[in-house]
Amino acid sequence: MKATCVATSNIAFVKYWGRIDDKLRLPMNGSVSMNISGATTTTTVEFDSSPDADVVELQGKTLDEQQIQRVSKHLDRIRQLAGFTSRAKVVSHNNFPMGAGIASSASAFAALTVAGTAAAGLELSERDLTILARQGSGSACRSVPAGFVQWHYGETNEDSFAEQIAPPEHWNLHDLIAVVQTEHKAVSSAQGNALVSTSPFNEVRVREAHRSVEVIRRAILDKDFTTFGEEIEREAIRLHVIAMTSRPPIFYWSPVTLAIIQAVSQWRTEGLESYYTIDAGANVHVIVQAQDAERVVQRLAAMDGVQDVLRNQPGQGAQLVNEHLF
Amino acid sequence: MKATCVATSNIAFVKYWGRIDDKLRLPMNGSVSMNISGATTTTTVEFDSSPDADVVELQGKTLDEQQIQRVSKHLDRIRQLAGFTSRAKVVSHNNFPMGAGIASSASAFAALTVAGTAAAGLELSERDLTILARQGSGSACRSVPAGFVQWHYGETNEDSFAEQIAPPEHWNLHDLIAVVQTEHKAVSSAQGNALVSTSPFNEVRVREAHRSVEVIRRAILDKDFTTFGEEIEREAIRLHVIAMTSRPPIFYWSPVTLAIIQAVSQWRTEGLESYYTIDAGANVHVIVQAQDAERVVQRLAAMDGVQDVLRNQPGQGAQLVNEHLF
Repeated sequence: MKATCVATSNIAFVKYWGRIDDKLRLPMNGSVSMNISGATTTTTVEFDSSPDADVVELQGKTLDEQQIQRVSKHLDRIRQLAGFTSRAKVVSHNNFPMGAGIASSASAFAALTVAGTAAAGLELSERDLTILARQGSGSACRSVPAGFVQWHYGETNEDSFAEQIAPPEHWNLHDLIAVVQTEHKAVSSAQGNALVSTSPFNEVRVREAHRSVEVIRRAILDKDFTTFGEEIEREAIRLHVIAMTSRPPIFYWSPVTLAIIQAVSQWRTEGLESYYTIDAGANVHVIVQAQDAERVVQRLAAMDGVQDVLRNQPGQGAQLVNEHLF
Repeated sequence: MKATCVATSNIAFVKYWGRIDDKLRLPMNGSVSMNISGATTTTTVEFDSSPDADVVELQGKTLDEQQIQRVSKHLDRIRQLAGFTSRAKVVSHNNFPMGAGIASSASAFAALTVAGTAAAGLELSERDLTILARQGSGSACRSVPAGFVQWHYGETNEDSFAEQIAPPEHWNLHDLIAVVQTEHKAVSSAQGNALVSTSPFNEVRVREAHRSVEVIRRAILDKDFTTFGEEIEREAIRLHVIAMTSRPPIFYWSPVTLAIIQAVSQWRTEGLESYYTIDAGANVHVIVQAQDAERVVQRLAAMDGVQDVLRNQPGQGAQLVNEHLF
């Protein structure tokens, strides 16, 4: 009744932004991502019949009741599948800082899903694990398979799942996260997500995102960095177009975000090819081929307002680990 | 055969961004603007049968042949209406700096149209003057009438004209121009304009702009500052949405532009009500009611990266002036 899982977060090249079903977390469009090696959540789940309530510890601190609610709800999904009601003790640890532009809910709910189902004695297919993880946090489904991953658009619970496009060793892209803002953002992703339909541009963005999924999937398989890069920038901008034209408008960028957008474009004209993508926040993920990573890190680190540069390579999927290692 | 005109530039609340006819400069959507008192062009046109070519002097310097071409083409329109071929001497002076976020072609072609037709002995209605000015530079048609002006969308030369919504004294709005960048912008408005159709969002923007024209026209007549302000911000952002999603994308903003966008929103939460609008460039026009102008000027001037703040009130239309005053 106890299992531990390590899962990485992922960076989306086509974004999850807007839902057709809030309860099931069914997205308006499919998405594509890469797991990021440097950002892992390690979670141990232990079911025990004695306690009255789930206990959740994150970074050594017990979460309060309100924070536990979302985790408990996810454990309920697992308990329902397993056919028991035992409460759980969950101990979770992130190896990356919060507020650095890394989606912690992706790695957290991927790890919780895989550790939780294992602890409950369930044996689910990878596809079913992604469907379950998605209900906890949409982007978590993309952290279950390894490497480059597609989350399929689907109008039902069973059709909206994630699967691998290519394993991590397929293409050695680096994701360099330029940290420009560490404070909690003023508008959460959840809030922003809820507003997408208030933007007059959302319908077009969804249509374009569907198209981008195909372009980016193909470019990953072909390792066509230029096609890949130009498309991920377009898609990233479109998320922010929707945010900026929502009612009320949301400006996730900081002035430094814009400076990096412009610098990356400028570097390309100088022959240094890298591309940006930006989630619902101010921090910038700069994607670069392995041979250029060091130069780009140095340039980013030298920019005014860049507090840190975190380096990532394509990451593994959510994996159960041997208890005895801990 | 000689006349002098003073015309002001204008700030658009609904933007002219994209054309259905490049030759006639017919816009994709109607627009609304306010003439700005502090930015004038004074132009004298004198027709003379003796010279072989038009001579054009701006700020005391003779323009070269290539620069003269657009002016000559406009003089040709006037010569055709007047039925003569005499060349002209044009002497023009702007009282405002170039590259400060003020559309000099608006005031320049409004003044050239009014002075040129008068010097040619033509007596055109205001409507016909706006149609003529529009062919020289689209936004120039809005600088012919005084105060608050609407440029009507129209699919033919005759239907696309400007007219006054309200005179300058109707509403004492101030346009505070925060100058954050004075160098020549990398992508001209003409180039940006030519790319609008490459944005997947353009069709929606045009539809929204049509709607905004009605909302803003009504808000001006009602002096409803909140409705007016929220709508001009939405419309300004939409221009930049189109630019950022054009192929190739255009980022007119500088980091300081974004800092001002965010500051203005923040000031509103503190009870200081002002709104931004941004043309195809980095400089920001902050629109404020007279009683708040001084406070907003001080806040803008105190911001890092703001080089100057230019103050404007609602301006007059293009007016012929008595020669003897010069």
